Amino acid sequence: MPKLIDITELCLRDAHQSLLATRMAMEDMVPACTDIDKAGYWSVECWGGATFDACIRFLNEDPWERLRTFRKLMPNSRLQMLLRGQNLLGYRHYEDGVVDRFVDKAASNGMDVFRIFDALNDIRNIRHSVQAVRRNGKHAQGTISYTTSPLHTTETFVEMAERLVELGCDSICIKDMAALLRPQAAYDVVKGIKTRCGEGVRIHIHTHATTGVTLVSLMRAIEAGADCLDTAISSLSLGPGHNPTESLVAMLVDTGYETRLDKAALHRIKNHFATIRPRYQAFMSNIVGVETDIFDSQIPGGMISNMESQLKQQGAGDRLEEVFIEVPRVREDAGFPPLVTPSSQIVGTQAVFNVLMGRYKVLSSEFSDLMLGYYGETPGQRDPEVLALAEAQAHKPPILQRPADLLTPEWESLHTAATALPGCNGTEEDVLTYAMFPQVAANFFEKRSEGPLNLGRDPETPGKSTKGAAGANAPGSNAVNSPVTYDVKLNGRSHRVSVSPVE
Amino acid sequence: MPKLIDITELCLRDAHQSLLATRMAMEDMVPACTDIDKAGYWSVECWGGATFDACIRFLNEDPWERLRTFRKLMPNSRLQMLLRGQNLLGYRHYEDGVVDRFVDKAASNGMDVFRIFDALNDIRNIRHSVQAVRRNGKHAQGTISYTTSPLHTTETFVEMAERLVELGCDSICIKDMAALLRPQAAYDVVKGIKTRCGEGVRIHIHTHATTGVTLVSLMRAIEAGADCLDTAISSLSLGPGHNPTESLVAMLVDTGYETRLDKAALHRIKNHFATIRPRYQAFMSNIVGVETDIFDSQIPGGMISNMESQLKQQGAGDRLEEVFIEVPRVREDAGFPPLVTPSSQIVGTQAVFNVLMGRYKVLSSEFSDLMLGYYGETPGQRDPEVLALAEAQAHKPPILQRPADLLTPEWESLHTAATALPGCNGTEEDVLTYAMFPQVAANFFEKRSEGPLNLGRDPETPGKSTKGAAGANAPGSNAVNSPVTYDVKLNGRSHRVSVSPVE
Repeated sequence: MPKLIDITELCLRDAHQSLLATRMAMEDMVPACTDIDKAGYWSVECWGGATFDACIRFLNEDPWERLRTFRKLMPNSRLQMLLRGQNLLGYRHYEDGVVDRFVDKAASNGMDVFRIFDALNDIRNIRHSVQAVRRNGKHAQGTISYTTSPLHTTETFVEMAERLVELGCDSICIKDMAALLRPQAAYDVVKGIKTRCGEGVRIHIHTHATTGVTLVSLMRAIEAGADCLDTAISSLSLGPGHNPTESLVAMLVDTGYETRLDKAALHRIKNHFATIRPRYQAFMSNIVGVETDIFDSQIPGGMISNMESQLKQQGAGDRLEEVFIEVPRVREDAGFPPLVTPSSQIVGTQAVFNVLMGRYKVLSSEFSDLMLGYYGETPGQRDPEVLALAEAQAHKPPILQRPADLLTPEWESLHTAATALPGCNGTEEDVLTYAMFPQVAANFFEKRSEGPLNLGRDPETPGKSTKGAAGANAPGSNAVNSPVTYDVKLNGRSHRVSVSPVE
Repeated sequence: MPKLIDITELCLRDAHQSLLATRMAMEDMVPACTDIDKAGYWSVECWGGATFDACIRFLNEDPWERLRTFRKLMPNSRLQMLLRGQNLLGYRHYEDGVVDRFVDKAASNGMDVFRIFDALNDIRNIRHSVQAVRRNGKHAQGTISYTTSPLHTTETFVEMAERLVELGCDSICIKDMAALLRPQAAYDVVKGIKTRCGEGVRIHIHTHATTGVTLVSLMRAIEAGADCLDTAISSLSLGPGHNPTESLVAMLVDTGYETRLDKAALHRIKNHFATIRPRYQAFMSNIVGVETDIFDSQIPGGMISNMESQLKQQGAGDRLEEVFIEVPRVREDAGFPPLVTPSSQIVGTQAVFNVLMGRYKVLSSEFSDLMLGYYGETPGQRDPEVLALAEAQAHKPPILQRPADLLTPEWESLHTAATALPGCNGTEEDVLTYAMFPQVAANFFEKRSEGPLNLGRDPETPGKSTKGAAGANAPGSNAVNSPVTYDVKLNGRSHRVSVSPVE
């Protein structure tokens, strides 16, 4: 009897986040849900990541209602979400009471599996949400943000897995958002974790397809004992997205492993999204095919597009190569953080600043915070000179404690502010929506009654005009967050730098 | 010391044949040649297949001159070509004397490695060209057309390899034109050949990327002992094309295998073709991403596009699913031939006939010939009833001998006919060009002095008008061969069916 390999299907979340700038309308997903529910997936990722933001910012859709709809349409499936640890689905640290309420509400609205990560792999930023998930009796998946650097060895990742298991995580995920996970490394990390933590520890692998090698990595991960792999139905796969579900199924024929997925259901899901995808042409990533430069620069595909557009705005489109060389240096100075939201944007933007204005002549406030520990502990030592510059510029001291420990309880004030807004329905869900994105939520509450938009079906709706501003061409998860614009003056010359997040 | 894995680079032949309908102009390839020559490839595939036809049909370019130019620009590289055995680069069987002259001329103009295949895997159709290559002291690569069917087992392919080795082939190629070679099968076939024929027998693997699994198959083939793999530089890869060279390089890091390719050179080659490819938008394959239906239907991507367009011309575009079901049945009746030029077109067209007019109500003359043995021996038994129909319709008997044995020496008559044409330069190369495509060659000789066209740079040149007629949207190697149009009358209704070849 071949060994069963579990599959998490990504088409309802990360696939369209990576390929279509998270713009897919709920009504374009609904018709596939019955087939997805019966295809035999271990779980269906369908919420979290950038979808929450995209719902209220672009689609005039209540993300909580989306979750409840998925719950109703897929009664037999484990629903899965991506959660940014102490950042939840926002871009700042939240106080623990807000984390508790968010997880409670996600669970009570139908979420089963919480994949929880921190951009710096600082386990202190993951701990509280793991506890909240466990308190709800749901599946807490502790996540390792995979990256490569002189500091990141198999041992580093195995140790982090050990600590996640100690936290009580129900499974471990290796999250390879930049497609850097090569086959041998995949084998070594999975084997290392299984050996250290026990064969019974479930290991899930999330890889993107961007560099073209990661289906091979999934094969090697399986051989090392991985339990569950993330894939996306073929018509919503590849490029900055993920490996195709059907290719993984075919890959395993006669190998002693099998997925036992329902091929007829997969075929219908594929055909459905094959007809849907072209409607979102305007939001499609520029990256097609593969990009192996990422191995050298560690710069994820989404970040490249963002930096290109930042440079072009400065009339410095020809300096991208310099930025490519600068990014790894800035990353080293910052203690080799993985490059994932928000560290990817912070490091990328600082590299652009360095190239345009001279190395560390100007520090973004986010970069100063990163240097000073306000995002958590970076994997390696930060450069003392740059740290001193950050301290001088930010007028605040470096910290060693968990960033959320600096925060005081904030639920009551969030509640008061949210419920005062026109259109707020007074639920805790609405308060949480406000907590994530206060300004965007206020606009959404006011217009909610107009109902969801479908930017695919009708690209001329007002929603589309937000495209440019939010970097729809930047693949990955970066397209739904508001860009921050800096006016930087140096030697009397003004530089306008716009920064959009990349997951 | 990691084991060296050799690479054949496909960007100058099969990559643009599969992705850009073989339309790439020589002047768009020339600038990359210096880097290709020094990147460290085992060989550079740059001639044969459909390029010969494309040169004279679409590009007003002398294919022999193309070969000489490559020879000059890549003095350090093994140049490689794809040869259709007794069919050479045409679509009929040639008498042995013509085969001899073709191989002699290819060798004397600079060809080093001859990859020789037969669509039916009938070794009698391969033998004479292998002998001609060996007589010239060049590398004869005996090729197995890989397919799947109840008759095609590991043992089948190992036996064929054994016979190719007995023929004196310098290496064996497993040619997976439809991307059907799954990882375990790749391992088993390579291991089987090495075990049976000896570790010293070189094995090359040619896979397409269409189904998304074949990079994994290449990994497994390497583990089984494969010596050389075919890849295409990333900017001319994937879809109906091939796995990206740089992804294969990255895949092998830390595995105990390495390619030792020059990464900086690869980067420059990639950048060059990244700028070139978009100029050929008009000729690009409709297939992007992956297509795993091929595993069930065995219908290669290029064939699907052709059948779709045949059906649409009949106002029967909605009957494609029926044809999908019919193709494997026709293939079984014909003795399970691999589906590759010309068997793919013959079987595909007969399936279309069957769906439109009733099963075997009308037989194409090519299908009759296939049933009667005029293309060679099919792998399995042909259906006796269909064979009887073919005999009755074609008014000729089935044959058992090698098809070329029916032919009488034809060089003198070809020479006389060719040299009488206006513009023929009297060389044996021109006679061979005429022998391959008499009508097209005649047109080419007349206009040759006007010089080569670049359909990429200038899509409005007259060459472009040939696009529709030749099925430029059909990916793979199918776009450069003249379509054959049949007028079929049945019950007083006329059906016009146009057939274009797929490699």
